Amino acid sequence: MSQKIVGVKASTGIAIGKAFLLATPEWEIQKTSVENTIEEIKRFEGALDKAKADLQGIAQRVEAEMGADKAEIFKAHLLVLEDPELVDTIKTKIEQDRVNAESALDEVANGFILLFEQMDNEYMKERAADIRDVTKRVMSYLLGIEFATPAQLTEEVIVVAEDLTPSDTAQLDRRFVKGFVTDIGGRTSHSAIMARSLEIPAVVGTREVTKAARQSSLMILDGHEGIVILDPSEDEIARYRQKKAEYDAHKAELAKLVTQQTVTADGHHVELAANIGSTQDLAGVLENGAEGVGLFRTEFLYMGREDFPTEEEQFQAYRQVLEQMEGKPVVIRTLDIGGDKHLSYLDMPHEMNPFLGFRAIRLCLDNQELFRTQLRALLRASVHGNLKIMFPMIATLEEFRQAKAILEEEKKGLQASGTAVSDQVEVGIMIEIPAAAMMADQFAKEVDFFSIGTNDLIQYTMAADRMNERVAYLYQPYHPAVLRLIHQVIQAAHAQGKWVGMCGEMAGDPVAIPILLGMGLDEFSMSAASILPARQLLGRMSREEAAKHTNTVLSMSSSHQVEEFVQRTFG
Amino acid sequence: MSQKIVGVKASTGIAIGKAFLLATPEWEIQKTSVENTIEEIKRFEGALDKAKADLQGIAQRVEAEMGADKAEIFKAHLLVLEDPELVDTIKTKIEQDRVNAESALDEVANGFILLFEQMDNEYMKERAADIRDVTKRVMSYLLGIEFATPAQLTEEVIVVAEDLTPSDTAQLDRRFVKGFVTDIGGRTSHSAIMARSLEIPAVVGTREVTKAARQSSLMILDGHEGIVILDPSEDEIARYRQKKAEYDAHKAELAKLVTQQTVTADGHHVELAANIGSTQDLAGVLENGAEGVGLFRTEFLYMGREDFPTEEEQFQAYRQVLEQMEGKPVVIRTLDIGGDKHLSYLDMPHEMNPFLGFRAIRLCLDNQELFRTQLRALLRASVHGNLKIMFPMIATLEEFRQAKAILEEEKKGLQASGTAVSDQVEVGIMIEIPAAAMMADQFAKEVDFFSIGTNDLIQYTMAADRMNERVAYLYQPYHPAVLRLIHQVIQAAHAQGKWVGMCGEMAGDPVAIPILLGMGLDEFSMSAASILPARQLLGRMSREEAAKHTNTVLSMSSSHQVEEFVQRTFG
Repeated sequence: MSQKIVGVKASTGIAIGKAFLLATPEWEIQKTSVENTIEEIKRFEGALDKAKADLQGIAQRVEAEMGADKAEIFKAHLLVLEDPELVDTIKTKIEQDRVNAESALDEVANGFILLFEQMDNEYMKERAADIRDVTKRVMSYLLGIEFATPAQLTEEVIVVAEDLTPSDTAQLDRRFVKGFVTDIGGRTSHSAIMARSLEIPAVVGTREVTKAARQSSLMILDGHEGIVILDPSEDEIARYRQKKAEYDAHKAELAKLVTQQTVTADGHHVELAANIGSTQDLAGVLENGAEGVGLFRTEFLYMGREDFPTEEEQFQAYRQVLEQMEGKPVVIRTLDIGGDKHLSYLDMPHEMNPFLGFRAIRLCLDNQELFRTQLRALLRASVHGNLKIMFPMIATLEEFRQAKAILEEEKKGLQASGTAVSDQVEVGIMIEIPAAAMMADQFAKEVDFFSIGTNDLIQYTMAADRMNERVAYLYQPYHPAVLRLIHQVIQAAHAQGKWVGMCGEMAGDPVAIPILLGMGLDEFSMSAASILPARQLLGRMSREEAAKHTNTVLSMSSSHQVEEFVQRTFG
Repeated sequence: MSQKIVGVKASTGIAIGKAFLLATPEWEIQKTSVENTIEEIKRFEGALDKAKADLQGIAQRVEAEMGADKAEIFKAHLLVLEDPELVDTIKTKIEQDRVNAESALDEVANGFILLFEQMDNEYMKERAADIRDVTKRVMSYLLGIEFATPAQLTEEVIVVAEDLTPSDTAQLDRRFVKGFVTDIGGRTSHSAIMARSLEIPAVVGTREVTKAARQSSLMILDGHEGIVILDPSEDEIARYRQKKAEYDAHKAELAKLVTQQTVTADGHHVELAANIGSTQDLAGVLENGAEGVGLFRTEFLYMGREDFPTEEEQFQAYRQVLEQMEGKPVVIRTLDIGGDKHLSYLDMPHEMNPFLGFRAIRLCLDNQELFRTQLRALLRASVHGNLKIMFPMIATLEEFRQAKAILEEEKKGLQASGTAVSDQVEVGIMIEIPAAAMMADQFAKEVDFFSIGTNDLIQYTMAADRMNERVAYLYQPYHPAVLRLIHQVIQAAHAQGKWVGMCGEMAGDPVAIPILLGMGLDEFSMSAASILPARQLLGRMSREEAAKHTNTVLSMSSSHQVEEFVQRTFG
């Protein structure tokens, strides 16, 4: 009998294949006395070297295939294995206590893990997770136990795991991993975002799949419906082969749209742009025919390193993006650090509510050298393409004016020193704080454009942390309160002849797109994988028709009502 | 030479008197061997009994003078001293290790403190602070060192402290404490709120006063300007005596307004109500001539205890408030727990952003027995006065409808069992989430009234945690974005013939009052101490005149601009 398990739709597509259970190895560490401590230390060093070689290999492969930013975590793991505080403490323990390497490694690593975990600091907690990851790798060499990782795969499988860590997802090989399914996670969890970015079908948050699935048994994964079928019947296999063939045909249809512009059925052009986190994401942007980059999240340039990136490093990254986009618009957002993102080399106090805290432009205006360095790099790069600069988390006009003034100062400084700077650089802001949306009419007089950041705008408007499962039901993109704010932002911008984009998850959502088109949104920026379906959808829609429904939608009283209406009207 | 120190204005008034430095005693604990452990345990028990007697005395006095809610903390402290896990561990240590009581107490208490502090849970951290407080008291008896507390005062002083804990402020005796000044804290810190509630002049956040002031030296405290003058000259003393006399005369003037209604110069009546946290606050409400209770925060009924209050306990509290208000309106808010408020007996998971988390109505709708018990107590009390029920943290219409339906069910249930329930109970919501403000037109069709909770509304609108010092500059009550939301809420309510109150700090703010009056706010609810000054201010203003400035204010671009305009126009 087949068994059906329901989870959260994380990434579309269908996979039929054998289950590969990515279980954490369980082992018992025995403490034994050793006579020859010199030999034991050598044995430890041998295991350490093998683990390092592993990580170097993974880092290189990941960097080549997926980009430097995705390889950062492995470089961080290598640093852990080279940390004398950890390594020397273990060696000393072997020597002085005359114990085996396994028990010394276990005790010392657990001590560090416990210490970091107890700290009331998300960054240190992540360090604890890193230490756990890498010491497990060393331990497996010491014990001679094989370590199950997605990197070992040599046949096509569906990966089944409790959760996928960043290091797991970074190692997923698209040749072999046809899909994955996890016990935990939601649509915006790290593994779900990675699945969409890799275009691998995925279902997350099933709660029970690791308990129900057996190693190597056949399974079907349907990322459209968010279901998994274990031990499917012949009938089910045939039905899903058919469904997969239809989906593949649909994707082939979409592929034809790569070189086309985005034009609605009634002849209006809208811009479909892509969100990127690093220069390596550009391949996907170009493959999917994006008409620009609507959001370059520069924080990844700052993460997974030991110090701030230099002006020159940043300049090279920005120039590369601008050049590869060949004159198409590229919106680069200045550093948005803080909140749930921290830098190991920037001391930030613990905050009780980091999402309502000292982050993004607030932090940049207070750390001007950091900010000015980035602005100089951007201005220098501006002559290599069509650059637009965007400030994140703007709440007040004063903040925008101050940021803009600093930008102007740096521009004058560069020009005075004979450096070429483009005069065509547009300067805009993210609209992601309700105050900015409420003041859009005033901002519109002073900025060149808006980009609506719905992920944050929704969580502040609804006062619900989108990462908190207990209030996740309040994260409602179609809630009329959110739509009213978006509508008034677009109206305010257009009244001043400014354009409005959107770079939150909502911009690529088929339910939201008809509403946003009707409201007159000018630019939709989304993950590269969403661009072609969005282009197809928009090509079938009339903007004039969509606009007729705007007032109806805005007068509704719930998200549910809006969703139902859109599906009935445009579905 | 006198020395002037500037801090934050926490509570108005002027005090001239001797400094009383409330310094934490420093002591060195010696570990010594004891022969007679039985005697040593007896000595420990003796100190314990004295500390308990202290706390019982304080709790009784505070309960009688300031209300049961303010006495809760001392009852919690008593529970610590009766906790066998703490007490027996100390006795065992004395017996087994044959050490003196001081070192046993020190080691065991520090162990617990460390354990609780390391937990990533605000509630447990507070428990750590409690243990520190009470063990210090026991230690002082063991060491025979006198323990400086505000409770010991026998002459008029100005208390000088690094900070005042809830237990410090609860012990402030208004007969002797003429004012206080602290190194840390802001306008909305616990000590500042207490100072205003006790009507004691206070300056907080001076950073340096404990270093600069000498014990028993003369000082002047000016709560209007937020300054402290140490070792004042004869001239300064004379000048401040004069200022104090003027202020006292002004207060006498205000006192005449106690029995009057609040009527503007052009004859419009607005309602000035008070915010309360317990039945004991009623004395202040009546003394200051409030026309109603605009917000009864019921969470204090649930705090500082070991289990939920019964329906009967709640009924008695609600009835008492309704009866004492003699038919004047009393708005009782259902439980707003979560965020920064926790109950020891209700297990709540740690949240990364508690202000955006599972709190208030969200928690009540998920814990229906808790919610229904409170609603039954309210409905039963409804026949004893003019009750209005208000739901906090409403974001969506569905939440309001669900809460209202539960209320209706409980009403029918009570009526079926023959219990009298008033048919005149209005049911309203707090407007404190931007989504609710944006949807006010829809809510206005279904609720009986709104009360705007500006403390939360501002922090969500600006995406700035008001407790976080680094972003406190963004907590801007006069920001046009906030004012626009308030304005549209009032307009939406009036369009449906519903009334709108405000129960945040802003309602009592002399800069905000002219703006709110002009917008047509119907009810202003504030701390009792603000009522008479507000009545005086409103009595001098014309609502028609104020209304003429509404559009001007709403079209401004910054909080600063609004504040300046109001001071110039109405100042």
